[in-house]
Amino acid sequence: MPVDEGLLIEQWRARAETALARWLPSAATLPDRLHEAMRYSTLGGGKRIRPLLVYAAGHALDVAAEQLDGAAAAVELIHVYSLIHDDLPAMDDDELRRGKPTCHRAFDEATAILAGDAMQALAFHIIAADPTLAGSADARLRMIDTLAQAAGSRGMAGGQAIDLDAVGRELSLAELENMHIHKTGALIRASVRMGALGAGDAAAPEAIERLDHYAKCIGLAFQIRDDILDVEGETETLGKTRGADLARGKPTFPSLLGLSEAKERAHGLYQDALDALAPLPASAEPLRWIAGFIVNRIH
Amino acid sequence: MPVDEGLLIEQWRARAETALARWLPSAATLPDRLHEAMRYSTLGGGKRIRPLLVYAAGHALDVAAEQLDGAAAAVELIHVYSLIHDDLPAMDDDELRRGKPTCHRAFDEATAILAGDAMQALAFHIIAADPTLAGSADARLRMIDTLAQAAGSRGMAGGQAIDLDAVGRELSLAELENMHIHKTGALIRASVRMGALGAGDAAAPEAIERLDHYAKCIGLAFQIRDDILDVEGETETLGKTRGADLARGKPTFPSLLGLSEAKERAHGLYQDALDALAPLPASAEPLRWIAGFIVNRIH
Repeated sequence: MPVDEGLLIEQWRARAETALARWLPSAATLPDRLHEAMRYSTLGGGKRIRPLLVYAAGHALDVAAEQLDGAAAAVELIHVYSLIHDDLPAMDDDELRRGKPTCHRAFDEATAILAGDAMQALAFHIIAADPTLAGSADARLRMIDTLAQAAGSRGMAGGQAIDLDAVGRELSLAELENMHIHKTGALIRASVRMGALGAGDAAAPEAIERLDHYAKCIGLAFQIRDDILDVEGETETLGKTRGADLARGKPTFPSLLGLSEAKERAHGLYQDALDALAPLPASAEPLRWIAGFIVNRIH
Repeated sequence: MPVDEGLLIEQWRARAETALARWLPSAATLPDRLHEAMRYSTLGGGKRIRPLLVYAAGHALDVAAEQLDGAAAAVELIHVYSLIHDDLPAMDDDELRRGKPTCHRAFDEATAILAGDAMQALAFHIIAADPTLAGSADARLRMIDTLAQAAGSRGMAGGQAIDLDAVGRELSLAELENMHIHKTGALIRASVRMGALGAGDAAAPEAIERLDHYAKCIGLAFQIRDDILDVEGETETLGKTRGADLARGKPTFPSLLGLSEAKERAHGLYQDALDALAPLPASAEPLRWIAGFIVNRIH
């Protein structure tokens, strides 16, 4: 039975939203301002690409969405906390995020730092404690380790450090790719891997490897598309300031490759991602939709 | 056979230092500046109270120190990351920590934020992945959850939010205690609990409860002593600026209770802590030494 693409994706988005709203402490819980900031930055916005990848990778290996809500919420919390910290004055100093004032603008810098810190801790609490999460205790430990390594100094946080160090410098294509493999690629790969870990030993190593290759391709394609949108997109649709990277002297794929070659490269990675999935069963179909969404998105 | 107090404590400190040095990425690993900042802030300083509590709680329940190095390193990483973030200009804006320039002074604000972020992730990586850690996969998950909850918005990060909110305000004694129960108490309690979790189901629930009561008492005593040192200590010995809390208009135990009643209260909590340990075997002795150290320390 073919599943309606939009419907399934919307169901997963709604699941992730519900899980996040449930795990985030209420804004009536003390310290209320901190909890309000955490909810403000997390809920009611965002494409939820990473939760979708958790669900879709699980779906490809017959893991029910009901058993992946905790992993989906955890990976999104890590993503959103990184946005809050990256937007700080000492980092990218951004005013807008997802169409709203950034956390430190809506609250204050100290609250934004602490909200991010607490969201990282919450992510690990969820995977350790969620009673409905798929997999054995060992699988959970592997999920935690996957997320911790992807978030750490040799993953996302390291990528942001490389990014800050690159402002105003000339980067080679290899250096630019290396930065993005850490900054965004690591967490996208972790999302797919966490979904797959829900299948435990039922998953064939070859399928896991194919999913991982898919994740590497779409992770880079995602960033190239982001850079293209920074040139071509509209601030209103993006929910953040267009041209911000260029204005800051940040190296981008279009600035290194030219706009048309950057687009070709994103499309090539999309094709590679689909090729990696080719031998997988029909249940891998949603991963194909997400790859398409990533390279065609307008925000 | 009675064990030499100073020797055992020094052995544990050395174990924690070795574990931290081993788990922190080398400053030669990219991104090198980030890794250098992480090592700069963590290694070669600090009283290592929390690692000592992990080892001593394990010792009380016959868990070998060799099996707790990962937990000791993890809890210290969470502690040090919180110091790095608390010292930031947007928070306490401190210049000195452990007798050296604070991380954002020695490096820069962005690096300090990212170093803290990466250290939190590293802590969870260690507990999930350390091959020598005591306990079953379930015990590890409980350690991770203990640490995550202690670090989060209803623990340490929440305590720092309450602290920032309290600057310049009048606090009642109950409010002041509530702040410290979160800000420092949660992680001290987690340290003792993590050591005890290494014993798995071998530990009697009553012993665990006694250890937890001990931890609550010394956590608060630790903070009262900190406040007393802020009044009486010497900047040189403290490794941070004396009188900084008072100058900042932060409420403290001496400012609320007077110096002599604050000292009495610290001593009362020390006695309560010892009483909690009274029925435990001789292997709980190092926990008594640590309690004594906490209320008598001069830095």
